[in-house]
Amino acid sequence: MLHTLAFDADDTLWHNETHYAETQEAFRALLRPFHDDAWIDARLHDTEMRNLGRYGYGIKGFTLSMIETALQLTEHRLDGAGVQQVLDLGKAMLDKPVEPLPGVADVLQALAGEYRLMLITKGDLFDQETKLARSGLGVHFAAVEIVSEKDEATYAAILQRHGIPAAAFAMVGNSVKSDILPVLALGAQAIHIPYHLTWAHEVVEAPADSPFPVLDSIRDLPALLASW
Amino acid sequence: MLHTLAFDADDTLWHNETHYAETQEAFRALLRPFHDDAWIDARLHDTEMRNLGRYGYGIKGFTLSMIETALQLTEHRLDGAGVQQVLDLGKAMLDKPVEPLPGVADVLQALAGEYRLMLITKGDLFDQETKLARSGLGVHFAAVEIVSEKDEATYAAILQRHGIPAAAFAMVGNSVKSDILPVLALGAQAIHIPYHLTWAHEVVEAPADSPFPVLDSIRDLPALLASW
Repeated sequence: MLHTLAFDADDTLWHNETHYAETQEAFRALLRPFHDDAWIDARLHDTEMRNLGRYGYGIKGFTLSMIETALQLTEHRLDGAGVQQVLDLGKAMLDKPVEPLPGVADVLQALAGEYRLMLITKGDLFDQETKLARSGLGVHFAAVEIVSEKDEATYAAILQRHGIPAAAFAMVGNSVKSDILPVLALGAQAIHIPYHLTWAHEVVEAPADSPFPVLDSIRDLPALLASW
Repeated sequence: MLHTLAFDADDTLWHNETHYAETQEAFRALLRPFHDDAWIDARLHDTEMRNLGRYGYGIKGFTLSMIETALQLTEHRLDGAGVQQVLDLGKAMLDKPVEPLPGVADVLQALAGEYRLMLITKGDLFDQETKLARSGLGVHFAAVEIVSEKDEATYAAILQRHGIPAAAFAMVGNSVKSDILPVLALGAQAIHIPYHLTWAHEVVEAPADSPFPVLDSIRDLPALLASW
Protein backbone atom coordinates (compact mmCIF):
# COMPACT_ATOMS: atom_id res chain seq x y z
CA MET A 1 0.00 0.00 0.00
CA LEU A 2 2.74 2.43 1.04
CA HIS A 3 4.66 3.35 -2.12
CA THR A 4 6.14 6.82 -1.49
CA LEU A 5 8.61 7.62 1.28
CA ALA A 6 9.47 11.27 1.77
CA PHE A 7 12.43 12.53 3.76
CA ASP A 8 13.15 15.82 5.42
CA ALA A 9 16.70 17.04 4.73
CA ASP A 10 18.24 19.26 7.46
CA ASP A 11 18.99 17.18 10.58
CA THR A 12 17.35 14.12 9.02
CA LEU A 13 19.77 13.41 6.15
CA TRP A 14 22.62 15.70 7.16
CA HIS A 15 23.81 17.84 10.06
CA ASN A 16 22.37 21.35 10.15
CA GLU A 17 21.34 22.58 13.59
CA THR A 18 24.87 21.80 14.80
CA HIS A 19 26.15 24.47 12.39
CA TYR A 20 23.65 27.00 13.72
CA ALA A 21 24.67 26.12 17.30
CA GLU A 22 28.38 26.53 16.52
CA THR A 23 27.73 29.84 14.78
CA GLN A 24 25.60 31.07 17.64
CA GLU A 25 28.46 30.28 20.05
CA ALA A 26 30.83 32.39 17.94
CA PHE A 27 28.21 35.14 17.89
CA ARG A 28 27.95 35.03 21.70
CA ALA A 29 31.73 35.27 21.98
CA LEU A 30 31.66 38.44 19.87
CA LEU A 31 29.05 40.07 22.12
CA ARG A 32 30.23 38.71 25.49
CA PRO A 33 32.02 41.98 26.32
CA PHE A 34 28.58 43.63 26.23
CA HIS A 35 26.05 41.08 27.56
CA ASP A 36 25.62 37.66 29.14
CA ASP A 37 24.89 34.58 27.01
CA ALA A 38 21.25 34.08 27.97
CA TRP A 39 20.40 37.68 27.08
CA ILE A 40 22.23 37.45 23.73
CA ASP A 41 20.40 34.22 22.87
CA ALA A 42 17.03 35.64 23.83
CA ARG A 43 17.50 38.84 21.81
CA LEU A 44 18.73 36.91 18.74
CA HIS A 45 15.71 34.62 18.94
CA ASP A 46 13.39 37.65 19.20
CA THR A 47 15.00 39.23 16.14
CA GLU A 48 14.70 36.01 14.15
CA MET A 49 11.02 35.62 15.02
CA ARG A 50 10.31 39.30 14.24
CA ASN A 51 12.00 38.90 10.83
CA LEU A 52 10.57 35.48 9.92
CA GLY A 53 7.67 36.97 7.97
CA ARG A 54 10.12 39.00 5.89
CA TYR A 55 13.14 36.74 5.56
CA GLY A 56 11.69 33.22 5.82
CA TYR A 57 14.00 30.39 6.87
CA GLY A 58 17.66 30.00 6.00
CA ILE A 59 21.20 31.17 6.56
CA LYS A 60 20.96 34.51 4.76
CA GLY A 61 18.06 35.66 6.90
CA PHE A 62 19.83 34.31 9.99
CA THR A 63 22.94 36.33 9.10
CA LEU A 64 20.90 39.52 8.64
CA SER A 65 19.21 38.87 12.01
CA MET A 66 22.59 38.34 13.69
CA ILE A 67 23.82 41.69 12.33
CA GLU A 68 20.65 43.45 13.48
CA THR A 69 20.88 41.88 16.96
CA ALA A 70 24.56 42.77 17.29
CA LEU A 71 23.84 46.42 16.44
CA GLN A 72 20.95 46.51 18.89
CA LEU A 73 22.86 44.87 21.75
CA THR A 74 25.79 47.27 21.34
CA GLU A 75 23.63 50.34 20.77
CA HIS A 76 25.32 50.64 17.37
CA ARG A 77 28.78 50.58 18.92
CA LEU A 78 29.76 47.35 17.15
CA ASP A 79 32.46 48.47 14.73
CA GLY A 80 32.89 47.61 11.06
CA ALA A 81 35.30 44.79 11.84
CA GLY A 82 32.66 43.25 14.13
CA VAL A 83 30.00 43.44 11.42
CA GLN A 84 32.45 41.86 9.00
CA GLN A 85 32.96 39.01 11.50
CA VAL A 86 29.22 38.33 11.51
CA LEU A 87 29.12 38.41 7.69
CA ASP A 88 31.98 35.90 7.70
CA LEU A 89 30.13 33.64 10.16
CA GLY A 90 27.23 33.49 7.70
CA LYS A 91 29.51 32.74 4.76
CA ALA A 92 31.27 30.02 6.73
CA MET A 93 27.89 28.37 7.37
CA LEU A 94 27.07 28.47 3.65
CA ASP A 95 30.47 26.96 2.86
CA LYS A 96 30.20 24.13 5.41
CA PRO A 97 30.57 20.70 3.86
CA VAL A 98 27.34 18.70 3.77
CA GLU A 99 27.83 15.73 6.10
CA PRO A 100 25.25 12.97 5.73
CA LEU A 101 24.23 11.43 9.05
CA PRO A 102 25.47 7.87 9.71
CA GLY A 103 23.76 5.25 7.56
CA VAL A 104 21.87 7.72 5.36
CA ALA A 105 23.48 6.84 2.03
CA ASP A 106 23.12 3.06 2.56
CA VAL A 107 19.52 3.25 3.74
CA LEU A 108 18.43 5.49 0.86
CA GLN A 109 20.14 3.20 -1.61
CA ALA A 110 18.39 0.16 -0.13
CA LEU A 111 14.94 1.77 0.04
CA ALA A 112 15.07 3.32 -3.44
CA GLY A 113 14.51 -0.14 -4.92
CA GLU A 114 11.24 -0.66 -3.04
CA TYR A 115 9.76 2.82 -2.70
CA ARG A 116 9.50 6.05 -4.63
CA LEU A 117 11.70 8.39 -2.58
CA MET A 118 10.98 12.10 -2.26
CA LEU A 119 12.80 14.91 -0.52
CA ILE A 120 10.59 17.54 1.12
CA THR A 121 12.54 20.32 2.75
CA LYS A 122 11.86 23.82 3.94
CA GLY A 123 14.16 26.79 3.65
CA ASP A 124 16.11 28.78 1.17
CA LEU A 125 15.72 27.36 -2.36
CA PHE A 126 19.25 28.09 -3.53
CA ASP A 127 20.84 26.92 -0.28
CA GLN A 128 18.85 23.66 -0.17
CA GLU A 129 19.54 22.87 -3.84
CA THR A 130 23.23 23.50 -3.30
CA LYS A 131 23.31 21.26 -0.24
CA LEU A 132 21.51 18.45 -2.02
CA ALA A 133 23.94 18.68 -4.93
CA ARG A 134 26.96 18.63 -2.61
CA SER A 135 25.56 15.77 -0.53
CA GLY A 136 25.68 13.40 -3.48
CA LEU A 137 22.31 12.01 -2.33
CA GLY A 138 20.21 13.58 -5.09
CA VAL A 139 20.41 10.46 -7.25
CA HIS A 140 18.13 8.52 -4.88
CA PHE A 141 15.18 10.90 -5.10
CA ALA A 142 12.48 10.71 -7.76
CA ALA A 143 11.21 14.15 -6.74
CA VAL A 144 12.47 17.08 -4.71
CA GLU A 145 10.14 19.66 -3.16
CA ILE A 146 11.67 22.73 -1.55
CA VAL A 147 8.94 24.65 0.22
CA SER A 148 8.73 27.80 2.31
CA GLU A 149 6.61 26.25 5.08
CA LYS A 150 5.77 22.64 6.02
CA ASP A 151 2.17 22.72 7.15
CA GLU A 152 -0.88 20.63 6.33
CA ALA A 153 -1.74 22.71 3.26
CA THR A 154 1.76 22.28 1.84
CA TYR A 155 1.71 18.50 2.23
CA ALA A 156 -1.83 18.29 0.82
CA ALA A 157 -0.71 20.26 -2.25
CA ILE A 158 2.33 18.02 -2.77
CA LEU A 159 0.28 14.80 -2.50
CA GLN A 160 -2.27 16.19 -4.94
CA ARG A 161 0.32 17.41 -7.42
CA HIS A 162 2.00 14.01 -7.48
CA GLY A 163 -1.27 12.04 -7.37
CA ILE A 164 -0.31 10.22 -4.17
CA PRO A 165 -3.14 8.98 -1.90
CA ALA A 166 -2.45 9.75 1.79
CA ALA A 167 -2.54 6.03 2.60
CA ALA A 168 0.38 5.41 0.25
CA PHE A 169 2.60 8.13 1.76
CA ALA A 170 4.97 8.24 4.73
CA MET A 171 7.17 11.13 5.85
CA VAL A 172 10.44 10.67 7.74
CA GLY A 173 11.93 13.57 9.67
CA ASN A 174 13.35 15.06 12.84
CA SER A 175 10.77 17.78 13.49
CA VAL A 176 7.51 16.79 15.18
CA LYS A 177 6.08 20.17 14.19
CA SER A 178 7.06 20.17 10.52
CA ASP A 179 7.50 16.52 9.54
CA ILE A 180 5.10 14.57 11.74
CA LEU A 181 1.95 16.34 12.96
CA PRO A 182 0.81 17.92 9.64
CA VAL A 183 1.35 14.59 7.83
CA LEU A 184 -0.62 12.59 10.42
CA ALA A 185 -3.40 15.18 10.16
CA LEU A 186 -3.78 14.24 6.49
CA GLY A 187 -4.13 10.56 7.34
CA ALA A 188 -0.68 9.61 6.08
CA GLN A 189 2.11 7.94 8.09
CA ALA A 190 5.01 9.74 9.73
CA ILE A 191 8.18 8.41 11.32
CA HIS A 192 10.12 10.53 13.79
CA ILE A 193 13.92 10.35 13.96
CA PRO A 194 14.95 12.97 16.54
CA TYR A 195 18.16 14.94 16.12
CA HIS A 196 20.06 15.79 19.29
CA LEU A 197 19.35 19.52 18.81
CA THR A 198 16.06 21.19 17.91
CA TRP A 199 15.70 24.83 16.93
CA ALA A 200 13.55 26.61 19.54
CA HIS A 201 11.05 27.63 16.82
CA GLU A 202 10.44 23.95 15.96
CA VAL A 203 9.85 22.73 19.52
CA VAL A 204 6.27 21.61 20.16
CA GLU A 205 4.64 19.81 23.07
CA ALA A 206 4.85 16.12 22.09
CA PRO A 207 1.40 14.49 22.20
CA ALA A 208 1.11 12.35 25.36
CA ASP A 209 0.51 9.11 23.47
CA SER A 210 2.67 9.57 20.36
CA PRO A 211 0.68 7.94 17.57
CA PHE A 212 3.82 7.63 15.46
CA PRO A 213 6.98 5.54 15.58
CA VAL A 214 10.18 7.10 16.91
CA LEU A 215 13.53 5.72 15.76
CA ASP A 216 17.01 6.28 17.15
CA SER A 217 18.62 6.19 13.74
CA ILE A 218 17.69 6.07 10.06
CA ARG A 219 19.44 2.67 10.13
CA ASP A 220 16.34 1.27 11.89
CA LEU A 221 13.99 2.44 9.13
CA PRO A 222 14.14 -0.55 6.75
CA ALA A 223 13.27 -2.97 9.60
CA LEU A 224 10.35 -0.80 10.70
CA LEU A 225 8.98 -0.63 7.15
CA ALA A 226 9.42 -4.37 6.72
CA SER A 227 7.37 -4.93 9.89
CA TRP A 228 4.40 -2.95 8.50
CA MET B 1 -0.71 23.42 -30.99
CA LEU B 2 0.51 25.96 -28.42
CA HIS B 3 -1.31 25.17 -25.18
CA THR B 4 0.95 26.39 -22.36
CA LEU B 5 2.03 29.98 -21.88
CA ALA B 6 4.63 30.63 -19.19
CA PHE B 7 5.40 34.04 -17.74
CA ASP B 8 8.42 35.41 -15.97
CA ALA B 9 7.48 37.43 -12.87
CA ASP B 10 9.94 40.20 -11.91
CA ASP B 11 9.82 43.04 -14.48
CA THR B 12 7.39 41.06 -16.65
CA LEU B 13 4.32 40.96 -14.39
CA TRP B 14 5.38 43.52 -11.79
CA HIS B 15 8.03 46.17 -11.15
CA ASN B 16 11.26 44.86 -9.63
CA GLU B 17 14.43 46.33 -11.08
CA THR B 18 13.06 49.80 -10.29
CA HIS B 19 13.19 48.88 -6.60
CA TYR B 20 16.79 47.74 -6.91
CA ALA B 21 17.68 50.96 -8.75
CA GLU B 22 16.03 53.13 -6.07
CA THR B 23 17.78 51.19 -3.32
CA GLN B 24 21.10 51.45 -5.08
CA GLU B 25 20.67 55.23 -5.28
CA ALA B 26 20.10 55.37 -1.50
CA PHE B 27 23.18 53.17 -1.04
CA ARG B 28 25.26 55.56 -3.18
CA ALA B 29 24.05 58.50 -1.10
CA LEU B 30 25.27 56.74 2.05
CA LEU B 31 28.75 56.21 0.61
CA ARG B 32 29.08 59.45 -1.36
CA PRO B 33 31.23 61.02 1.41
CA PHE B 34 33.80 58.29 0.68
CA HIS B 35 33.67 57.56 -3.07
CA ASP B 36 32.19 58.61 -6.40
CA ASP B 37 29.08 56.93 -7.80
CA ALA B 38 30.72 54.95 -10.58
CA TRP B 39 33.23 53.40 -8.18
CA ILE B 40 30.49 52.52 -5.65
CA ASP B 41 28.40 50.89 -8.39
CA ALA B 42 31.34 48.93 -9.75
CA ARG B 43 32.40 47.63 -6.33
CA LEU B 44 28.82 46.65 -5.43
CA HIS B 45 28.48 44.77 -8.70
CA ASP B 46 31.79 42.97 -8.04
CA THR B 47 30.65 41.95 -4.57
CA GLU B 48 27.32 40.66 -5.90
CA MET B 49 29.03 38.58 -8.58
CA ARG B 50 31.58 37.21 -6.12
CA ASN B 51 28.76 36.19 -3.75
CA LEU B 52 26.35 34.83 -6.38
CA GLY B 53 27.58 31.26 -5.95
CA ARG B 54 26.94 31.50 -2.21
CA TYR B 55 23.86 33.68 -1.94
CA GLY B 56 22.01 33.08 -5.20
CA TYR B 57 19.54 35.74 -6.41
CA GLY B 58 17.29 37.87 -4.27
CA ILE B 59 16.99 40.75 -1.85
CA LYS B 60 18.56 39.07 1.20
CA GLY B 61 21.76 38.28 -0.68
CA PHE B 62 21.71 41.78 -2.19
CA THR B 63 21.44 43.28 1.30
CA LEU B 64 24.37 41.20 2.56
CA SER B 65 26.40 42.28 -0.47
CA MET B 66 25.56 45.94 0.16
CA ILE B 67 26.78 45.65 3.77
CA GLU B 68 29.98 43.93 2.66
CA THR B 69 30.62 46.57 -0.02
CA ALA B 70 29.95 49.42 2.41
CA LEU B 71 32.46 48.00 4.90
CA GLN B 72 35.01 47.51 2.16
CA LEU B 73 34.59 50.98 0.68
CA THR B 74 34.95 52.64 4.07
CA GLU B 75 37.76 50.38 5.26
CA HIS B 76 35.45 49.30 8.08
CA ARG B 77 34.85 52.90 9.16
CA LEU B 78 31.12 52.74 8.41
CA ASP B 79 29.52 52.96 11.84
CA GLY B 80 26.71 50.89 13.32
CA ALA B 81 24.09 53.45 12.34
CA GLY B 82 25.28 53.19 8.72
CA VAL B 83 25.03 49.40 8.76
CA GLN B 84 21.56 49.70 10.24
CA GLN B 85 20.61 52.01 7.35
CA VAL B 86 21.65 49.34 4.86
CA LEU B 87 19.68 46.67 6.77
CA ASP B 88 16.68 49.00 6.62
CA LEU B 89 17.11 49.50 2.86
CA GLY B 90 16.85 45.74 2.43
CA LYS B 91 13.77 45.49 4.63
CA ALA B 92 12.12 48.35 2.76
CA MET B 93 12.64 46.45 -0.50
CA LEU B 94 11.03 43.32 0.98
CA ASP B 95 8.09 45.40 2.21
CA LYS B 96 7.51 47.18 -1.14
CA PRO B 97 4.01 46.70 -2.47
CA VAL B 98 3.82 44.46 -5.51
CA GLU B 99 2.70 46.65 -8.43
CA PRO B 100 1.52 44.75 -11.50
CA LEU B 101 2.62 46.38 -14.75
CA PRO B 102 -0.14 48.03 -16.81
CA GLY B 103 -2.53 45.56 -18.43
CA VAL B 104 -1.14 42.47 -16.70
CA ALA B 105 -4.25 41.49 -14.74
CA ASP B 106 -6.58 41.91 -17.75
CA VAL B 107 -4.33 40.05 -20.17
CA LEU B 108 -3.79 37.10 -17.80
CA GLN B 109 -7.52 36.91 -17.18
CA ALA B 110 -8.23 36.88 -20.92
CA LEU B 111 -5.54 34.32 -21.79
CA ALA B 112 -6.34 31.94 -18.91
CA GLY B 113 -9.45 30.83 -20.81
CA GLU B 114 -7.48 29.75 -23.86
CA TYR B 115 -4.13 28.57 -22.49
CA ARG B 116 -2.70 26.81 -19.49
CA LEU B 117 -0.76 29.60 -17.75
CA MET B 118 2.43 28.96 -15.80
CA LEU B 119 4.67 31.23 -13.80
CA ILE B 120 8.40 30.49 -14.04
CA THR B 121 10.52 32.77 -11.93
CA LYS B 122 14.01 32.77 -10.53
CA GLY B 123 15.09 33.98 -7.14
CA ASP B 124 14.41 33.57 -3.48
CA LEU B 125 11.61 31.04 -2.88
CA PHE B 126 10.07 32.77 0.10
CA ASP B 127 10.32 36.21 -1.47
CA GLN B 128 8.79 35.14 -4.79
CA GLU B 129 5.94 33.23 -3.11
CA THR B 130 5.18 36.25 -0.95
CA LYS B 131 5.17 38.57 -3.96
CA LEU B 132 2.87 36.29 -5.93
CA ALA B 133 0.47 36.09 -2.99
CA ARG B 134 0.48 39.87 -2.56
CA SER B 135 0.08 40.51 -6.30
CA GLY B 136 -3.33 38.82 -6.35
CA LEU B 137 -2.34 37.26 -9.69
CA GLY B 138 -1.83 33.71 -8.39
CA VAL B 139 -5.36 32.67 -9.29
CA HIS B 140 -4.56 32.77 -13.03
CA PHE B 141 -1.73 30.24 -12.90
CA ALA B 142 -2.19 26.48 -13.16
CA ALA B 143 1.40 25.93 -12.06
CA VAL B 144 4.14 27.98 -10.41
CA GLU B 145 7.82 27.10 -10.71
CA ILE B 146 10.32 29.02 -8.61
CA VAL B 147 13.81 28.05 -9.68
CA SER B 148 17.33 29.02 -8.72
CA GLU B 149 18.57 29.47 -12.31
CA LYS B 150 16.78 29.80 -15.65
CA ASP B 151 18.92 27.93 -18.11
CA GLU B 152 18.20 25.32 -20.77
CA ALA B 153 18.42 22.42 -18.28
CA THR B 154 15.91 24.08 -15.96
CA TYR B 155 13.37 24.63 -18.75
CA ALA B 156 13.88 21.10 -20.08
CA ALA B 157 13.20 19.67 -16.61
CA ILE B 158 10.04 21.76 -16.23
CA LEU B 159 8.68 20.70 -19.63
CA GLN B 160 9.41 17.08 -18.85
CA ARG B 161 7.90 17.21 -15.37
CA HIS B 162 4.68 18.70 -16.74
CA GLY B 163 4.64 16.55 -19.87
CA ILE B 164 4.64 19.55 -22.21
CA PRO B 165 6.13 19.12 -25.71
CA ALA B 166 8.41 22.03 -26.67
CA ALA B 167 6.16 22.83 -29.64
CA ALA B 168 3.24 23.44 -27.28
CA PHE B 169 5.13 25.87 -25.03
CA ALA B 170 5.85 29.59 -25.16
CA MET B 171 7.67 31.70 -22.59
CA VAL B 172 7.02 35.43 -22.08
CA GLY B 173 9.58 37.55 -20.27
CA ASN B 174 11.81 40.60 -20.10
CA SER B 175 15.21 38.91 -20.00
CA VAL B 176 16.75 37.75 -23.26
CA LYS B 177 19.28 35.75 -21.26
CA SER B 178 16.88 33.98 -18.88
CA ASP B 179 13.50 33.97 -20.62
CA ILE B 180 14.23 33.86 -24.34
CA LEU B 181 17.49 32.22 -25.46
CA PRO B 182 17.31 29.00 -23.35
CA VAL B 183 13.68 28.48 -24.39
CA LEU B 184 14.43 28.95 -28.09
CA ALA B 185 17.32 26.51 -27.73
CA LEU B 186 14.80 23.84 -26.72
CA GLY B 187 12.71 24.46 -29.84
CA ALA B 188 9.91 26.23 -27.97
CA GLN B 189 8.63 29.76 -28.60
CA ALA B 190 9.64 32.86 -26.65
CA ILE B 191 8.24 36.38 -26.63
CA HIS B 192 10.31 39.27 -25.38
CA ILE B 193 8.71 42.19 -23.54
CA PRO B 194 11.60 44.45 -22.50
CA TYR B 195 11.49 46.35 -19.22
CA HIS B 196 13.08 49.81 -19.21
CA LEU B 197 15.83 48.63 -16.84
CA THR B 198 17.93 45.47 -17.05
CA TRP B 199 20.23 44.24 -14.28
CA ALA B 200 23.81 44.26 -15.56
CA HIS B 201 24.11 40.53 -14.87
CA GLU B 202 21.22 39.80 -17.24
CA VAL B 203 22.48 41.86 -20.16
CA VAL B 204 23.48 39.79 -23.19
CA GLU B 205 24.41 40.68 -26.73
CA ALA B 206 21.10 40.50 -28.61
CA PRO B 207 21.35 38.21 -31.64
CA ALA B 208 21.60 40.29 -34.83
CA ASP B 209 18.46 38.86 -36.41
CA SER B 210 16.24 38.29 -33.36
CA PRO B 211 14.32 35.10 -34.15
CA PHE B 212 11.68 36.02 -31.58
CA PRO B 213 8.91 38.61 -31.35
CA VAL B 214 9.47 41.71 -29.22
CA LEU B 215 6.46 43.51 -27.77
CA ASP B 216 6.18 46.96 -26.21
CA SER B 217 3.61 45.84 -23.68
CA ILE B 218 1.91 42.71 -22.43
CA ARG B 219 -1.26 44.34 -23.82
CA ASP B 220 -0.06 43.37 -27.31
CA LEU B 221 0.26 39.69 -26.41
CA PRO B 222 -3.28 38.45 -27.17
CA ALA B 223 -3.16 39.94 -30.70
CA LEU B 224 0.23 38.35 -31.37
CA LEU B 225 -0.99 34.93 -30.22
CA ALA B 226 -4.17 35.30 -32.28
CA SER B 227 -2.01 35.97 -35.36
CA TRP B 228 -0.09 32.66 -34.94
